[in-house]
Amino acid sequence: MTAPPSLDTLNAMPEQSFASVLADIFEHAPWVAAGVVAARPFPTLNALLDALTAAVRASAPERQLQLIKNHPDLAGKAARGGGLTKDSEAEQSSAGLDRLSDEEYARFDRLNQAYRSKFDFPFIIGGRRHTTDSILQQMEERARNDRAAEIETALGEVFRIVALRLDQRVTAADRLAVHGRLSTHVLDTYHGRPAAGVEIELVELSCSGAERRIIASRTNADGRTERPLIQERPLPIGRYELRFDIGDYFARHAVRLAAPPFLERVPVRFAIAEPEGHYHVPLLATPWSYTTYRGS
Amino acid sequence: MTAPPSLDTLNAMPEQSFASVLADIFEHAPWVAAGVVAARPFPTLNALLDALTAAVRASAPERQLQLIKNHPDLAGKAARGGGLTKDSEAEQSSAGLDRLSDEEYARFDRLNQAYRSKFDFPFIIGGRRHTTDSILQQMEERARNDRAAEIETALGEVFRIVALRLDQRVTAADRLAVHGRLSTHVLDTYHGRPAAGVEIELVELSCSGAERRIIASRTNADGRTERPLIQERPLPIGRYELRFDIGDYFARHAVRLAAPPFLERVPVRFAIAEPEGHYHVPLLATPWSYTTYRGS
Amino acid sequence: MTAPPSLDTLNAMPEQSFASVLADIFEHAPWVAAGVVAARPFPTLNALLDALTAAVRASAPERQLQLIKNHPDLAGKAARGGGLTKDSEAEQSSAGLDRLSDEEYARFDRLNQAYRSKFDFPFIIGGRRHTTDSILQQMEERARNDRAAEIETALGEVFRIVALRLDQRVTAADRLAVHGRLSTHVLDTYHGRPAAGVEIELVELSCSGAERRIIASRTNADGRTERPLIQERPLPIGRYELRFDIGDYFARHAVRLAAPPFLERVPVRFAIAEPEGHYHVPLLATPWSYTTYRGS
Amino acid sequence: MTAPPSLDTLNAMPEQSFASVLADIFEHAPWVAAGVVAARPFPTLNALLDALTAAVRASAPERQLQLIKNHPDLAGKAARGGGLTKDSEAEQSSAGLDRLSDEEYARFDRLNQAYRSKFDFPFIIGGRRHTTDSILQQMEERARNDRAAEIETALGEVFRIVALRLDQRVTAADRLAVHGRLSTHVLDTYHGRPAAGVEIELVELSCSGAERRIIASRTNADGRTERPLIQERPLPIGRYELRFDIGDYFARHAVRLAAPPFLERVPVRFAIAEPEGHYHVPLLATPWSYTTYRGS
Repeated sequence: MTAPPSLDTLNAMPEQSFASVLADIFEHAPWVAAGVVAARPFPTLNALLDALTAAVRASAPERQLQLIKNHPDLAGKAARGGGLTKDSEAEQSSAGLDRLSDEEYARFDRLNQAYRSKFDFPFIIGGRRHTTDSILQQMEERARNDRAAEIETALGEVFRIVALRLDQRVTAADRLAVHGRLSTHVLDTYHGRPAAGVEIELVELSCSGAERRIIASRTNADGRTERPLIQERPLPIGRYELRFDIGDYFARHAVRLAAPPFLERVPVRFAIAEPEGHYHVPLLATPWSYTTYRGS
Repeated sequence: MTAPPSLDTLNAMPEQSFASVLADIFEHAPWVAAGVVAARPFPTLNALLDALTAAVRASAPERQLQLIKNHPDLAGKAARGGGLTKDSEAEQSSAGLDRLSDEEYARFDRLNQAYRSKFDFPFIIGGRRHTTDSILQQMEERARNDRAAEIETALGEVFRIVALRLDQRVTAADRLAVHGRLSTHVLDTYHGRPAAGVEIELVELSCSGAERRIIASRTNADGRTERPLIQERPLPIGRYELRFDIGDYFARHAVRLAAPPFLERVPVRFAIAEPEGHYHVPLLATPWSYTTYRGS
Repeated sequence: MTAPPSLDTLNAMPEQSFASVLADIFEHAPWVAAGVVAARPFPTLNALLDALTAAVRASAPERQLQLIKNHPDLAGKAARGGGLTKDSEAEQSSAGLDRLSDEEYARFDRLNQAYRSKFDFPFIIGGRRHTTDSILQQMEERARNDRAAEIETALGEVFRIVALRLDQRVTAADRLAVHGRLSTHVLDTYHGRPAAGVEIELVELSCSGAERRIIASRTNADGRTERPLIQERPLPIGRYELRFDIGDYFARHAVRLAAPPFLERVPVRFAIAEPEGHYHVPLLATPWSYTTYRGS
Repeated sequence: MTAPPSLDTLNAMPEQSFASVLADIFEHAPWVAAGVVAARPFPTLNALLDALTAAVRASAPERQLQLIKNHPDLAGKAARGGGLTKDSEAEQSSAGLDRLSDEEYARFDRLNQAYRSKFDFPFIIGGRRHTTDSILQQMEERARNDRAAEIETALGEVFRIVALRLDQRVTAADRLAVHGRLSTHVLDTYHGRPAAGVEIELVELSCSGAERRIIASRTNADGRTERPLIQERPLPIGRYELRFDIGDYFARHAVRLAAPPFLERVPVRFAIAEPEGHYHVPLLATPWSYTTYRGS
């Protein structure tokens, strides 16, 4: 994998190359990138994104509709048959659509068909901003829209997908507002200091009862993990559980505990609703109490 | 089922009747009750229990050992074959020993055999004070005792079992110290008032990953459940989870929540280590934060 | 001081006696009690209060106005000259009006005169439900009312005063809703148990910076004070501070503390706005943290 | 005031100049700095401090004692008569010794005399690390030492004073460990976000009941003050109160509050015991509850 080109490089390269580098930013629609070549140089990545968006907005309604139709079904035949673009494949995988049970596949099929038969275009959603659960919920909710509203919603999702692709494809001095951050912090209010060396696990929960481990980590001397639990990407909308092994922690510090300890592995269950938000979910703990909250 | 006799009635009844009513207080050992008949009247239930305990302590070591040997294996052949006394059956069922998986039965068999072959008597433990998990743990720990210590431990468990049988079999003005209490309380610190109408569920967790619902309830106008979650019995040593539907609660009170809400069903996982203790496990909650602790 | 008569006694006594016992329930207006004699027997104290209120409501407007005019100025000449009825004296003293500084007296004089010159009757407020601060604030706020609204407000205060006098003058099976309650509870979340033996002080704060100790107490084995801090009376609207000596408490329990301890005497400052409300203000504390809230 | 020289400059300057720049680092004892000239260049500021300390340690006991005797009495005649070195004046002022009441002066006089008559040298303490209260407490405690221990303690204080003077007098790539930090953070757990625009005040409390405002500030969009409340200096050992105007804050955000609001200006009273420590004292608040703790 080669390093992504910088915006400066893009601004300076031959027109053909520029159009080619960004050809697949919009799914099967190289005309969008080609249409903004003449507007170079773009001072910022945000300016480039705005130009691409404006080019689509300025195009004929049928062309915009075609842009939507270029997208594959979620968890559909193309996905199962290996016929996705690399980007689509990665986006669907991010939301877990390549790990569905047979039952979930069947549910996607039903919802895809119902959606297509109502709107005559595929359901589009930015896979990196969602979990399987939130996609299914969106499919059910958006199926109740009228066609005009849904075309607008679908275009909005296309632009979000494009922004995320651009963020991965081009480096620049400015950043697009496409990243969220999830972090934690453990305070030991028994000793009045950060809790160092606490084992932490983050799992994604799904309505089906399944859970998927996102990351396991351990707090450092300041009671934080070395890096945020999730960063440099959108936070998938969904339900999560953080687990903090404070029983082990206090036992290691020679605190007299009950047997079994009143608190061992503390679960903090919460939902993420803003993919570009900052979620700080700390734990203030003693062997007999804890407090958690959405912090900053 | 007839109401249990009062201590006054026991004090006044013919000697034979007294001995007969309490014949099975000690497993297959009517001689213990018979031995205290002459000491009547007992001013309190505690005095009766003390007399019974003293009678055993005063008996010959072989007789004490026989008392231990009268008890059946836990989850053993007698249990499976229906050969238990009514009391033993209820006690083993209380700890879930009549609901074991094949694997768990096998584990009990192994531990029972190892214990018997070391000590030459069955493993005795008060089933009402334990969960399957804590019994298995005790079996492993106590197997490391020497014989003298283990005879003493087993006698202690016999007396605990007897106290609980007495508590159920005889009414009196005084109570034996054999009951614990688990309660909760939900405070809505967003509005500054008790949280009424919050759905609450208490489940017992086991190491095997299984969970068993103990009770489902709902908070009243004072934010409490009408009755303690567990009362009038020992609290089984083990791991539990309380679940509080505060997402529903705040939604019903027209609080603007995220979608999905940051907090929905808050799990509070804790362990009980003192069967006769009072555990108060409250929740102070807003839509974005909560605090829990062992209170009183 | 003789015990207050019961409602039954009142129902059964001669008409003259009944009227005489309740003659001063309304300030200088024995006609109100006399007017309800014929409606006896009253099944409850609340029914008696309702009858008295209804008798006033049914009287001519001038008579109602006279009822208002019967009341003395707050902290006025009559108060300073000893010309108050016993009830008025106790009520004004409850709000601290007999302990004013010269400056405060002057402020009351100014506000009394302004009020009287606008409305032609004295400012009436139930002294037991207020502190000096909240009375001064009410005087300023209510001076902005129009006359009709203010007559209604004054009558409402008269009825509140009457209810409190009745509550003290007559015993009955039912209670009037004239009492509030302020209580506290200290939880030691370091050891996971109630904090026993914590010194607690409750002071009333005033805008002038002065503070007045209401009560000093100490927590019992359950972490509570033996009796609520305030009960069996309305809670005076105003600002308070609870002080908890948790530094001493943890030092007594051999907890290693910093020197000086991070937390010693924890102040919790809060206001009471509902005289008939229940305010429970607990403290959950470790040597390094605490949580407080309006509980129940 | 000219900018302090860098360590590089000091390393490179003529011997005379070096000795002269650091002549008053030790009170009236230029010989210490002169004694380390030959050891240049010092790679770090810590190395320079170590060299100065070692030079004193290597000198004769009488010379070390003289070093101690060079220091003026705290709040003594020299201080009142203007006879202090600039450094001593600033250090004594930092601890409030130039703002004492007559009564406090008298107490210092008594304690100074008692100390001198026992040890035959003045009481030395680093004024920047203390408040008046903690100095008085140290005077009483240290007066109980024996002479050898107290000489050692006094030398230790001399080295702390020197480290702080060096920190102000010389810039370098490395820092001496002489600074503490006090910071805060306000979380609005009603809305689940940082509380912006909260007025905050920090006051120093003294045993005499006096209080002195250290700083007033206001939280920024992240719920923090722009700069730590105290930084780039030692935290004076003593008692403090942080006050948070959360009543105003919630009123500005249209939250329905009681009248008067249950919580208005929340006081958090705490003590600092480690001058070089990091104290983070956050507030998690709703209109009806708050939590505070020593964080990091």
